[in-house]
Amino acid sequence: MRLCFIGDSFVNGTGDATGLGWVGRACAAARRRGHDVTCYNLGIRRDTSSDVARRWYEESARRLPAEFDGRLVFSFGVNDCTRENGAPRVAQDVTLANARDILGSAKARHPTLMLGPPPVLLGDADERVAALSRALAPLCAELAIPYFDLHTPLAAIGLWRLELASGDGAHPGAAGYALIADLVEGWAAWRQWLP
Amino acid sequence: MRLCFIGDSFVNGTGDATGLGWVGRACAAARRRGHDVTCYNLGIRRDTSSDVARRWYEESARRLPAEFDGRLVFSFGVNDCTRENGAPRVAQDVTLANARDILGSAKARHPTLMLGPPPVLLGDADERVAALSRALAPLCAELAIPYFDLHTPLAAIGLWRLELASGDGAHPGAAGYALIADLVEGWAAWRQWLP
Repeated sequence: MRLCFIGDSFVNGTGDATGLGWVGRACAAARRRGHDVTCYNLGIRRDTSSDVARRWYEESARRLPAEFDGRLVFSFGVNDCTRENGAPRVAQDVTLANARDILGSAKARHPTLMLGPPPVLLGDADERVAALSRALAPLCAELAIPYFDLHTPLAAIGLWRLELASGDGAHPGAAGYALIADLVEGWAAWRQWLP
Repeated sequence: MRLCFIGDSFVNGTGDATGLGWVGRACAAARRRGHDVTCYNLGIRRDTSSDVARRWYEESARRLPAEFDGRLVFSFGVNDCTRENGAPRVAQDVTLANARDILGSAKARHPTLMLGPPPVLLGDADERVAALSRALAPLCAELAIPYFDLHTPLAAIGLWRLELASGDGAHPGAAGYALIADLVEGWAAWRQWLP
């Protein structure tokens, strides 16, 4: 199975000194269960849903030739919610339109999963991240794409906040990424792909 | 510093159950020495120099905004040398023309390094890989791009051959990728970037 993980710095694993991030950890765990997975990490720092919309198809198509079992995993949204020049970088209605566009086209090509944006400690951005995370759930349900709300469980875990506070306020370290990987490992939709 | 590693499955780390590959290990080692590096792994399985020529600029430009210190590390060539329909996938003169095109344009944008293709156990491909590795050295010297000949040292290490033989004949496991990372760690051009 060949998987493309497409999104932002949380997909890239920024802040994790080991370089694994949650993507590397989740794929390593799948290999330990005997799965032969090739992992393409396409997370880019500062990418919004609009940036992802512009590049996801081209970059994933190069990596998922038709003769292999290709899968897509998306995660974006935090960078849409951060403030720049007095306003969120991407307004929620535009983010949701981008998500509908990306996920609808993605699902027509490959089995697709979506993870919501995690909690951050960046001014008032987290209120918008929480609201976006809630709004993505019914959108994904409508598209019949499994959605994992990362925001709710991570916001309830003290270690997550500690990790952000001892970093740059946005990115956790290795322990925070291991938390996400554990959540993904317990996600029924992921385990159905990689039992 | 933001680094794009662009190339084939050896850049991707295919076969390494940990998911780190040599790229992940070399970046983790740089972080342990105190460097703040963001690593973008743009290795794609089966990519030849012609495939890299078509995508390297677009994919790296998205990841290396002008306001950050961006660097490029290339490694390709094995897939050019494997046989398909009775002939090498890319003839050596075309590979060298691609390398000249890619590396010349890359160096005009960002500091650039090149690693040659490693030894493989795939029919008669390794003779061509060895010849290509030798031919890339003077080309890189002419372009004033530091070149690391991976083929010569790896061919002399018994563990490398063992790793390939116990895998698919092309890709090592974690120990083989750790060998490459150690070689890169000892490379003067890399250590000048990340002392």
